[in-house]
Amino acid sequence: MKISTITVSAALALILTNQAIAGTPRTEPVQPIPAVEVTNPAMVELGKKLFFDPRLSKSGFISCNSCHNLSMGGTDNIKTSIGHNWQQGPINSPTVLNSSLNLAQFWDGRAANLKEQAGGPIANPGEMAFTHELAVDVLQSIPGYVNEFAVVFGNDALNIDMVTDAIAAFEETLVTPNGEFDQWLQGDDKALTAEALAGYQLFKQSGCVACHNGPNLGGTSYQKMGVIEPYTSASAEVGRAAVTGKDADRFLFKVPTLRNVELTYPYFHDGEAATLEEAVDIMGRLQLGRVYSEQEIGQIVAFLKSLTGEQPRFELPILPPSTNATPKPVPFG
Amino acid sequence: MKISTITVSAALALILTNQAIAGTPRTEPVQPIPAVEVTNPAMVELGKKLFFDPRLSKSGFISCNSCHNLSMGGTDNIKTSIGHNWQQGPINSPTVLNSSLNLAQFWDGRAANLKEQAGGPIANPGEMAFTHELAVDVLQSIPGYVNEFAVVFGNDALNIDMVTDAIAAFEETLVTPNGEFDQWLQGDDKALTAEALAGYQLFKQSGCVACHNGPNLGGTSYQKMGVIEPYTSASAEVGRAAVTGKDADRFLFKVPTLRNVELTYPYFHDGEAATLEEAVDIMGRLQLGRVYSEQEIGQIVAFLKSLTGEQPRFELPILPPSTNATPKPVPFG
Repeated sequence: MKISTITVSAALALILTNQAIAGTPRTEPVQPIPAVEVTNPAMVELGKKLFFDPRLSKSGFISCNSCHNLSMGGTDNIKTSIGHNWQQGPINSPTVLNSSLNLAQFWDGRAANLKEQAGGPIANPGEMAFTHELAVDVLQSIPGYVNEFAVVFGNDALNIDMVTDAIAAFEETLVTPNGEFDQWLQGDDKALTAEALAGYQLFKQSGCVACHNGPNLGGTSYQKMGVIEPYTSASAEVGRAAVTGKDADRFLFKVPTLRNVELTYPYFHDGEAATLEEAVDIMGRLQLGRVYSEQEIGQIVAFLKSLTGEQPRFELPILPPSTNATPKPVPFG
Repeated sequence: MKISTITVSAALALILTNQAIAGTPRTEPVQPIPAVEVTNPAMVELGKKLFFDPRLSKSGFISCNSCHNLSMGGTDNIKTSIGHNWQQGPINSPTVLNSSLNLAQFWDGRAANLKEQAGGPIANPGEMAFTHELAVDVLQSIPGYVNEFAVVFGNDALNIDMVTDAIAAFEETLVTPNGEFDQWLQGDDKALTAEALAGYQLFKQSGCVACHNGPNLGGTSYQKMGVIEPYTSASAEVGRAAVTGKDADRFLFKVPTLRNVELTYPYFHDGEAATLEEAVDIMGRLQLGRVYSEQEIGQIVAFLKSLTGEQPRFELPILPPSTNATPKPVPFG
């Protein structure tokens, strides 16, 4: 019995020691970003090419990566995007990073998933200004693509469903695990500075986490922009009401992710908050009725910067060339 | 003596056998593209970031890679490029691939080298529409860049010379060796199809090689567009005369490289030749007074397609984020 007690104690001591070294995963209203598991690498590679291919636009100049630039946090870092013929977009481009973790896509959630989203900008006259039919015609004229679609889908008769399936498959790989905050969540006490940790405590205690929760710190609900005070904006966007037609849904927007928020400036659906400090201050006042001090804002911003994860690293894709049969882009006129 | 003779014979036989296997490099008016030797990898990495960074433009939307897209043969594959505010460029974007092998840069040779070229589009109101001063202000406000410039140049006070040095250093790595034609040049008899070889013979015998020579099959001289017959074009570009002011230099353009010409459509300084077949036919008539048959055009095109080399492969750069102090892009207005 004695030996056995010693053994159990030793085992417990070992467990505790291991926990002290490796850390115990924390139970929090935010969860770490799971690493990506690629189940269909050929489809992901094809989707990557399509994501970078400006031939999916009327002009031959705009690709998915133009506004969801993977060198810049999956955004374009301008208030509202530039579309075909330099049209000014109505809304800030949300990051594509970790977007598979959102309950729906677009600020108003009008696309149920990434596949549905991917078809939107291609055919939007203010964005890529193409049509699904013309995009498929272009791809079908390029043997390099036809061969790749045949390998991936077992069918060389391309259609837009295959195109958006492949783009979505690539986008699902665009996750950013192992940020400092995720290391802390996984039990590494030293991963956060004292300032960032104080910021997280404040973020939780003052109610930010009511909306910015889950692994993506957002993307789990629609909420009104301007709860305590109305949000004044030159933007004509009404948010979720555009989808539901309900007056009660006016100015409800999908809560944006805070992952990589250091990289995805400027902020809000109209891009009018230039800095994180400004965004935190406005959110406190309008959503929580709370005026954060300069020190508190600094703490929350330090926490927000700990949400920058490992950016997706991959080779720039080389696109298969067009042929004499490929419809020509129409950049002007 | 006998033994010695046998030894020499055996050695000679061995040499001849090796040559038959490995091939004897051929002496031709075209030389293989030399593989790149990177002497300053840190500067190349910095230059790559700058090449992909749209913050060097007024809008924050246009980077070097927008018009010299390394997914697409270092070009934009449209007749003439799209600049700030969707302005239509006056001339077809030449490929950046192998551009270090050209005697000068731009179609009219107005930049002596890649460093001088790199500053042009940044400050051109029709292209990136920025100024060198503002570009430096932006970079100087970004600690990630300041640190990297300090490492590369031993100086954290950035200037435009450092910026263009780094971009040029990256561009010098953008060579495309080991295309089929280069393998043939290096002695591999099987690297070219009979059709491509016939095309090369015709290319040499009928005089194309008089201008399209050297490792880049071009880039070694300025020549008149329209020697035997005038070239009619809606383009207002006068070529070399814009630099020299000499009437005799009107419509002289730098002979473009034919390397990767399969990828760099459309062709000519005005981008008006959509296909290689059209370009070969027009060149034959206007420059050589020769009407190639359909078969001959097919042969030359087969040869031209053997000039597609290994495309530069590298990781998409992740750009250091802007800060609160970074001047904001001005995409509209």
